[in-house]
Amino acid sequence: MAVATQSLEEICINSIRFLAIDAVEKAKSGHPGLPMGAAPMAYVLWNQFMRYNPKNPSWFNRDRFVLSAGHGCMLQYAMLYLTGYDSVTIDDIKQFRQWESKTPGHPENFMTEGVEVTTGPLGQGIANGVGLAIAEAHLAAKFNQPDAKIVDHYTYAILGDGCNMEGVSGEACSLAGHLGLGKLIALYDDNHISIDGHTDLAFTEDVGKRFEAYGWHVITVDNPNLDRDTSLQALTDAIEEAKKVTDKPSMIKVRTIIGYGSPNKKDTHGVHGAALGESEVEATRKNMGWEYEPFVVPDDALKHFRKAVERGASYEAEWNQTFATYKTKYPTEAAEFERITSGTLPEGWEKVLPTYSPDKGTATRKHSQATLNALAPVLPELIGGSADLAPSNLTLLKVSGDFQKGQYSNRNLRFGVREHGMGAICNGIALHGSGLIPYGATFLIFTDYMRAAIRLSALSQAGAIWVMTHDSIALGEDGPTHQPVETIASLRAIPNLLVIRPADGNETSGGYKVAIENRNRPTLLAFTRQNVPNLAGTSIEGVAKGGYIVSDSDGTPDLILIATGSELHLCTEAAEKLRAEGKKVRVVSLVCWELFAEQDAAYQESVLPTGVTKRLAVEAGSTFGWSKYVGTEGGTIGIDRFGVSAPGGLAMEKFGFTVDNVVAKAKAL
Amino acid sequence: MAVATQSLEEICINSIRFLAIDAVEKAKSGHPGLPMGAAPMAYVLWNQFMRYNPKNPSWFNRDRFVLSAGHGCMLQYAMLYLTGYDSVTIDDIKQFRQWESKTPGHPENFMTEGVEVTTGPLGQGIANGVGLAIAEAHLAAKFNQPDAKIVDHYTYAILGDGCNMEGVSGEACSLAGHLGLGKLIALYDDNHISIDGHTDLAFTEDVGKRFEAYGWHVITVDNPNLDRDTSLQALTDAIEEAKKVTDKPSMIKVRTIIGYGSPNKKDTHGVHGAALGESEVEATRKNMGWEYEPFVVPDDALKHFRKAVERGASYEAEWNQTFATYKTKYPTEAAEFERITSGTLPEGWEKVLPTYSPDKGTATRKHSQATLNALAPVLPELIGGSADLAPSNLTLLKVSGDFQKGQYSNRNLRFGVREHGMGAICNGIALHGSGLIPYGATFLIFTDYMRAAIRLSALSQAGAIWVMTHDSIALGEDGPTHQPVETIASLRAIPNLLVIRPADGNETSGGYKVAIENRNRPTLLAFTRQNVPNLAGTSIEGVAKGGYIVSDSDGTPDLILIATGSELHLCTEAAEKLRAEGKKVRVVSLVCWELFAEQDAAYQESVLPTGVTKRLAVEAGSTFGWSKYVGTEGGTIGIDRFGVSAPGGLAMEKFGFTVDNVVAKAKAL
Repeated sequence: MAVATQSLEEICINSIRFLAIDAVEKAKSGHPGLPMGAAPMAYVLWNQFMRYNPKNPSWFNRDRFVLSAGHGCMLQYAMLYLTGYDSVTIDDIKQFRQWESKTPGHPENFMTEGVEVTTGPLGQGIANGVGLAIAEAHLAAKFNQPDAKIVDHYTYAILGDGCNMEGVSGEACSLAGHLGLGKLIALYDDNHISIDGHTDLAFTEDVGKRFEAYGWHVITVDNPNLDRDTSLQALTDAIEEAKKVTDKPSMIKVRTIIGYGSPNKKDTHGVHGAALGESEVEATRKNMGWEYEPFVVPDDALKHFRKAVERGASYEAEWNQTFATYKTKYPTEAAEFERITSGTLPEGWEKVLPTYSPDKGTATRKHSQATLNALAPVLPELIGGSADLAPSNLTLLKVSGDFQKGQYSNRNLRFGVREHGMGAICNGIALHGSGLIPYGATFLIFTDYMRAAIRLSALSQAGAIWVMTHDSIALGEDGPTHQPVETIASLRAIPNLLVIRPADGNETSGGYKVAIENRNRPTLLAFTRQNVPNLAGTSIEGVAKGGYIVSDSDGTPDLILIATGSELHLCTEAAEKLRAEGKKVRVVSLVCWELFAEQDAAYQESVLPTGVTKRLAVEAGSTFGWSKYVGTEGGTIGIDRFGVSAPGGLAMEKFGFTVDNVVAKAKAL
Repeated sequence: MAVATQSLEEICINSIRFLAIDAVEKAKSGHPGLPMGAAPMAYVLWNQFMRYNPKNPSWFNRDRFVLSAGHGCMLQYAMLYLTGYDSVTIDDIKQFRQWESKTPGHPENFMTEGVEVTTGPLGQGIANGVGLAIAEAHLAAKFNQPDAKIVDHYTYAILGDGCNMEGVSGEACSLAGHLGLGKLIALYDDNHISIDGHTDLAFTEDVGKRFEAYGWHVITVDNPNLDRDTSLQALTDAIEEAKKVTDKPSMIKVRTIIGYGSPNKKDTHGVHGAALGESEVEATRKNMGWEYEPFVVPDDALKHFRKAVERGASYEAEWNQTFATYKTKYPTEAAEFERITSGTLPEGWEKVLPTYSPDKGTATRKHSQATLNALAPVLPELIGGSADLAPSNLTLLKVSGDFQKGQYSNRNLRFGVREHGMGAICNGIALHGSGLIPYGATFLIFTDYMRAAIRLSALSQAGAIWVMTHDSIALGEDGPTHQPVETIASLRAIPNLLVIRPADGNETSGGYKVAIENRNRPTLLAFTRQNVPNLAGTSIEGVAKGGYIVSDSDGTPDLILIATGSELHLCTEAAEKLRAEGKKVRVVSLVCWELFAEQDAAYQESVLPTGVTKRLAVEAGSTFGWSKYVGTEGGTIGIDRFGVSAPGGLAMEKFGFTVDNVVAKAKAL
């Protein structure tokens, strides 16, 4: 079949395929199979359905596209290039998978305009899609007026077998079904092949039936690749049907052939994750009647694809008109919409942050509750919830009801016991780019369940807030399965994640201030279950510096006690005792290591002078990493084993978290 | 309804309930709701179906019981006490959730005989159950003879809404359906309540339909609690039906009422995770006609439960008879069965470990492949696989086919893209207690997906082997979503987990030797994607010590270069250059921090003398934690940011992992 006999549609679809084939071949690395099989669905979606403006990738009301099967990223880069995005040129495609190129090995929202979320770790993308759809539903319910719908877009995702095997996708899709997110449409690239081989090896469940059980609308489309006469109409019909079902998310199960077009490698796992190789590229060209040189797209095809530019301009112009009307009729709402979607925090918002004088205090999770509820009225963009631990995490916003089907204007999300799904959903909300500030909560230990999503929040610069309570063995009786020990250390190791463990009310306010202000990196806040006193010397400003002096003696200290969170008060009390014995003691709150490391050297030296080597760190967790601050002559009081089921106070005492032990260990230095 | 009018069955069931109520009340902490609602199913299961021997909890052929909803552990402790296990006395029940008691806040296999696996983190238990059922199916296929079935038991699990919301359970149950594990029977405590409130808040999917989609046999049982006349027959019938379906796992969905019996708190989330309170305990006693003091079990009930002791002795005796026959007829197989199930490694097994002389080497993942395949013939207890990355992780055992439905004697497990499920399944296989040595593999970065299971392997002393390849940015083009940076550090922080990053072939063999020998703690092996040379000075014995001198100059060194894995050869080469300039340089492989920390002080000092403070650590990962070894005067070459998509060699060079940079940084010290 020569090009001359191919329809324009076929040429367009083959253009996608060969860009993928050629880019992977040049890089000698990548995944050609998915783009080759999924090109028809991408073509139909981007050409007939999706509303986007290539010349303004961040146009607010664009349909969101997520390639959940991120390894197939050449599909996405091809579409971005073909439809006229400036972010991906043909030269960028030639630089596929090269150092600092716009076309990295998996889609990265922070590298490539037009990419909404960072995918590759399987299952994350579709779960991000649930978050994007939640953001849309929320803003639509909040802002739309009967005569002016300014928030009105779909979220489309392409996912594969791998995504569907991962638990995170199941969690998020179950919730999406529960919430009835009708504007979420997933296309399942059902190619029956994964890296190990045929899905018969490990994945024979009835995926469609599972999604129906979740409450999704499921449509099946037979292979649109089978031969040149096969119409793409079935795909078109399916997407149209999906759009008509407004009370359920839709999954379109499209039976495809991985590596379609490759005569010897199609329908095998050999085409999943490796270049075809020179001879097979040639054989594929011949098989497909593709007469063009590598990276050459036929003019007709490019011209056809590029109509997206005109369409996009017109979509945006139309929306601008709608918004202009909205602004005239609803000026207050329009101003709020503009404020929120531009990511501008309201003037003076931080004034509502509670401050405290020294007193017997309460649990920092209760300070967190108070702070969230102080912020909620002034920050309507704050939206979030807990993975079924709301009564323990204390994360409900009293000003709002629950975000449920038909009640999308509410801000309390009920995630269910789905930590990983929650994480990926919050990332999606943050990366909707509409100024929403999502938070997700569970017990600190269960960050282990959602660690992949927390890491992706840091990598993809999603300003999510992770509210983690029950932050040490002091939680008590639930025992070692629930007691974090190594958790804080392991989170501190993640780049671009702010880990804050507040000691009291002031530091809780300080923690939230940092979290709210950091819109391009996530913040994890660790709160106590148990009561802790409000201390003298703690402050919101101190937290912003990551580490600061909470109490001091005159002159150069003999000793520095360093602590975070619930152990800070042990140090301030121990310091009093030591001072009574004539020792010069400084107490430092090292509430956020990452922020402290970002301070200038002079400030760091002023807090932790190099010359003072007698240092004792006290933290109810692993000592892993503390050598950095206590050096070779210092000491630590920490926990380098698993915890134990017992009342929290007793557990703390047994593990040495007492004022007397701090005094004793300090003297031993 | 006074006790006098209750049937013996009712009294037995209420005995379970009130042990739970009273223990939680005394501890003022715990979860009474589940035991109160699920007491009937536990009663029927333990009294009519389960085969176990209370006086020998580790009797090989016992049915395995998993309380996946681990918070309801008083149900399990009550059953252990009532049926006559010595591990849980009435005094132990009075010590519920107290320091070092046999009755911790969640079931812990390492604290309480009769508890098979450690649960509490939701979803893990049912996934462990899949592992237990795989172990049974494998050993049955391997050892049973037509005239002597020595391996023949069921795995029962009770799971709740929380377990069913977690992705990990979905992953494992999808695989269980695929594998057709007919002897796995799950009872779903379908009480419609989770911590946040009614499941209507977040969980309205059709769970039964989902499990049918997975390929399970699903049975529904109406509430057996409804009134005193309700027969328990429906539960009995359901379990019998489940046992008859031998080619599919079964789920029995039992509609229960949480906190059944409490007049004011039943069917509310208030009874899920808190003591009833004095007055409600009294009201419940009155409501249930329960006239006994706290912790008192009516004699008739106890006597009835304790028949389990006699039954158990008889089950075991019967099995002993079967095994005696087996031993006579199949002495070779019997000897092998006894060797494996006693956890005895075959004499001289370690002699097959490959050793290497210095040469240009290969990727350590290839050494891993060679080692696994050297071990496989001599260690038939080795069973495992990859989460759909077998061609990359190189984990297939060539001596075996795939473990599939009807081919259970095979040893290559195909987990699908289900890292978390894989982790929990491997834990279940390890904790089957039958000597099987499970391994699970994926890319190192995706330990994030399965971290909760890895942690539980460490906590519950499961000797699983985690085979993690593609262990640094050197994996190249896949980019930052796939490149571990903080991963090794975050794993080192987990107590009781051995993290080994071999530098070459000898260290790979050393890593496996440690992993195979450690049957009560897990080992994580991190392997390269890229080639690395086989070095002089590396050794199997060195790895066993965690850290050792690979090359040295005479006398006290001026400088110590410390590295792990793929960076060790950079240090040995740099050392040569530095020595050529007259410097005295020692090179240390710190291949396993945990083992090194366990060596005596003299050995540690001999490797890293306190007096030598010029130290440079080189590792292609986060520097987090390295201060412990390089001190305040040392330096590091590491990566404290995310990676980048580019060819691996270039990425390593750009991040400073070159011999020249090691030399330069060393000189700068």
